[in-house]
Amino acid sequence: MITVIEKVAEMRAFITQARKQGKTIGFIPTMGALHEGHLTLMQEAKKCSDVVVASIFVNPTQFGPNEDYDAYPRTWPEDLEACSAVGVDVVFRPSVKEMYPNGWGTWVTVAGITDKLCGKSRPNHFRGVTTVVAKLFNIVQPDKAFFGQKDAQQVVVLTRMAQDLNMPVEIVMVPIVREPDGVAKSSRNSYLTAAERKSAPILYKSLCAAQQLVSQGEQSVQNIVAAVVRSIKSEPMATIDYVEIHSFPQLEEMAGLNQEALLAVAAKFGATRLIDNIILKPGERG
Amino acid sequence: MITVIEKVAEMRAFITQARKQGKTIGFIPTMGALHEGHLTLMQEAKKCSDVVVASIFVNPTQFGPNEDYDAYPRTWPEDLEACSAVGVDVVFRPSVKEMYPNGWGTWVTVAGITDKLCGKSRPNHFRGVTTVVAKLFNIVQPDKAFFGQKDAQQVVVLTRMAQDLNMPVEIVMVPIVREPDGVAKSSRNSYLTAAERKSAPILYKSLCAAQQLVSQGEQSVQNIVAAVVRSIKSEPMATIDYVEIHSFPQLEEMAGLNQEALLAVAAKFGATRLIDNIILKPGERG
Repeated sequence: MITVIEKVAEMRAFITQARKQGKTIGFIPTMGALHEGHLTLMQEAKKCSDVVVASIFVNPTQFGPNEDYDAYPRTWPEDLEACSAVGVDVVFRPSVKEMYPNGWGTWVTVAGITDKLCGKSRPNHFRGVTTVVAKLFNIVQPDKAFFGQKDAQQVVVLTRMAQDLNMPVEIVMVPIVREPDGVAKSSRNSYLTAAERKSAPILYKSLCAAQQLVSQGEQSVQNIVAAVVRSIKSEPMATIDYVEIHSFPQLEEMAGLNQEALLAVAAKFGATRLIDNIILKPGERG
Repeated sequence: MITVIEKVAEMRAFITQARKQGKTIGFIPTMGALHEGHLTLMQEAKKCSDVVVASIFVNPTQFGPNEDYDAYPRTWPEDLEACSAVGVDVVFRPSVKEMYPNGWGTWVTVAGITDKLCGKSRPNHFRGVTTVVAKLFNIVQPDKAFFGQKDAQQVVVLTRMAQDLNMPVEIVMVPIVREPDGVAKSSRNSYLTAAERKSAPILYKSLCAAQQLVSQGEQSVQNIVAAVVRSIKSEPMATIDYVEIHSFPQLEEMAGLNQEALLAVAAKFGATRLIDNIILKPGERG
């Protein structure tokens, strides 16, 4: 049996009750349009939590004015069924008005690491993410919260937020789930035309090639980035937004590849912006 | 018996234990230099909480570069004794490094209502207050937190923050405690020279005169403010920073005095900036 809750007060009452019974709470915040990546997060949560709560909320504050808030896929009946099938106990599904009532005006911002990568082309995006997740954490009060590595910068930013604000929650990062051809699962893949979808595997292919370079001893960040750029450009349908390498999880500039590093890419296929990444490991095969 | 805790992890462990035992937690965040105003907050907390936690932390992020962070009075032995005498269970007394370790960088900001009153002459002050209080709330996880009306804008801002971020805490505002001559108790009163101290009662005197005007039927915000300004200016040692009237607790502009309103003043006496306020009630005697 799955419970659907739409009001903050009801969600809080449920949590208070669960906490009184000494239950641990695992939480998966989502924007819905659930795919296998989300379901993997839920399964992970299930393994180590007495109660699993997923939220479905397309958060307006993390979309830019010219981004896809209105177009973002909303697939409620399927989402509910998927949550139920995977054993989620509660789906929290608030309205925009419930989360941002009249007069609302408090932001949580993480400085520094939000300026690079996706933060560069999506100003205020991470402010929206950190703010809504801070709110959801306060409502759901989870012991652990689960996020996909696909949004690696998001995981780093949220981990920093939780640490910096002393939130009593553990952030768990779960590996990327991919289609058979390597494309990272994403709700936005549904925007792709058949031709765009066919060219999308270039991103992961380029990332794997980079890991191979590293395994062969390449240590120059500049050379690796150049190789990835070249590789993505070989696909005419792809327009690069960024290819960047940063230390992980600090997201600092790196001169040479002497520790684990995040290689992250963003590219447009037609009007659709896709992101992908791998953690480069010096001396390991990709 | 009173417990002193200096580490976040230890404070959290204590709270987890107390929560497991079903105890309610009352919290009083302070910057130390405790006076009767603080002790009243603690007594209020004691009345309705199983465990009373007070924090003593002179928070650097809420002081401007030219403000009195270094000079702020630190009176630890007396503070501990006072907490103990009034029945506080735990004093949380972290170091600056414990609260803001290397790499720290997450802010909580409340928009709009932080620009006026004290926010005008103390930019970034409220950002420091909301951030440190958000941190302390996450560490102490109180059911209720107690703040003095002397910092009325602070109470309004923190209430807004708690609401906007769905924090599971109730903010309780406790009336101002005054010296026999009407001066609001404040840690900063210790800065005053004898002559300045002697002129300080002008603030409360002016506030009371304003309430009398209102009780006599004066409804013009402009007239009331003008009367208060005139009254404070009659004291040569006082230099006005602001005299403002706003709706309470929304802190919005008011044309006429048709509802409860905050009349707040700030003035310098020599180098020392004092604040005071009353809630004006239409049709009531002050």
